[in-house]
Amino acid sequence: MDKPANTDLPIHPLIRGRYSPRAFADKAVAAGDVTLLLEAARWAASCFNDQPWRFLVATRERPEGHAKMLGCLVESNQRWASAAPVLLLCVAARNFERSGKANAHARHDLGLAMGNLSLQAGALGLSLHIMAGIDREAARAAYGIPEDFDVVTGVAVGYAGAPDSLPAELAERERAPRSRKPLEELVFADAWGEPRRA
Amino acid sequence: MDKPANTDLPIHPLIRGRYSPRAFADKAVAAGDVTLLLEAARWAASCFNDQPWRFLVATRERPEGHAKMLGCLVESNQRWASAAPVLLLCVAARNFERSGKANAHARHDLGLAMGNLSLQAGALGLSLHIMAGIDREAARAAYGIPEDFDVVTGVAVGYAGAPDSLPAELAERERAPRSRKPLEELVFADAWGEPRRA
Repeated sequence: MDKPANTDLPIHPLIRGRYSPRAFADKAVAAGDVTLLLEAARWAASCFNDQPWRFLVATRERPEGHAKMLGCLVESNQRWASAAPVLLLCVAARNFERSGKANAHARHDLGLAMGNLSLQAGALGLSLHIMAGIDREAARAAYGIPEDFDVVTGVAVGYAGAPDSLPAELAERERAPRSRKPLEELVFADAWGEPRRA
Repeated sequence: MDKPANTDLPIHPLIRGRYSPRAFADKAVAAGDVTLLLEAARWAASCFNDQPWRFLVATRERPEGHAKMLGCLVESNQRWASAAPVLLLCVAARNFERSGKANAHARHDLGLAMGNLSLQAGALGLSLHIMAGIDREAARAAYGIPEDFDVVTGVAVGYAGAPDSLPAELAERERAPRSRKPLEELVFADAWGEPRRA
């Protein structure tokens, strides 16, 4: 399915074409491609180069591992994410490694890493759907995630599939166009609320 | 200057080539390109599609605006960021717009938007340097940023310049290779600390 961003501006095709699918094709992701996604994430920028991101990975090639990670999602996400051949749990360090002080930028920097991962996914023809809807305590217990790391998101990764494979209500959401606030509500110049004159 | 990621894996060239410069060429960024950067950020994914990101923009075409934003950086960043033709302040909503509840994912989602912005910058031959070192209270006062938004980062944007333009100590850091933790320390499979077998 094509679901391009509704913009007249010539943004990069991988940004224009990206969307977060719930429908995934029944097609495995090569192990080397999963490595490439993570390698792309690894080279993101981070505050003090602390690299606060950690990833847990499960693939359908090992069904018991896939089921275990699927069980760490909320039920409404399990419904469709079960079809994704690759699942991730994304974790962020609470403190800087060097100083032990609280890292207020860890989640931001995980987001940067996920931006890289998303770009690399697009370049490989893959899509991802990042999920806030996860059971963090279940994930912590299931994987032994230390207390000084926050379980932030789950991610479903695979080749986007046909919306028809989804229950009717989700298929409708899948087909809905992407929408965003206008740039004028997001970008200001000399003061908050004052438009930028490009 | 080329400063490619030290990896044998075929990650996307825009990820391989990206670095965070302190040296910027004396070359303005076209206003339309600044718009493209922000438009790219606008189309990022976010939790509940809340789009918690906001951006304040200053360019050297309006020197008083550039000086005002430069004054919101810590002094060690002002030293080199003064040469960047475009400066941004990045702001994240504390609460979800719809529910008013605290948004624990706002900084993560700002990071995703910055990932898009970074990709778009690379595609335009531009570089950016995201800075945690800013004076948040000065920024809040100078721009009238509301209390329900967090001032998260500053960003210097421009065409990367020659390290020689920097003071010696910064030039040395600029030339140093990019380094990252090995993938094995970042990615686990069945349990925390257990390697993934790709």
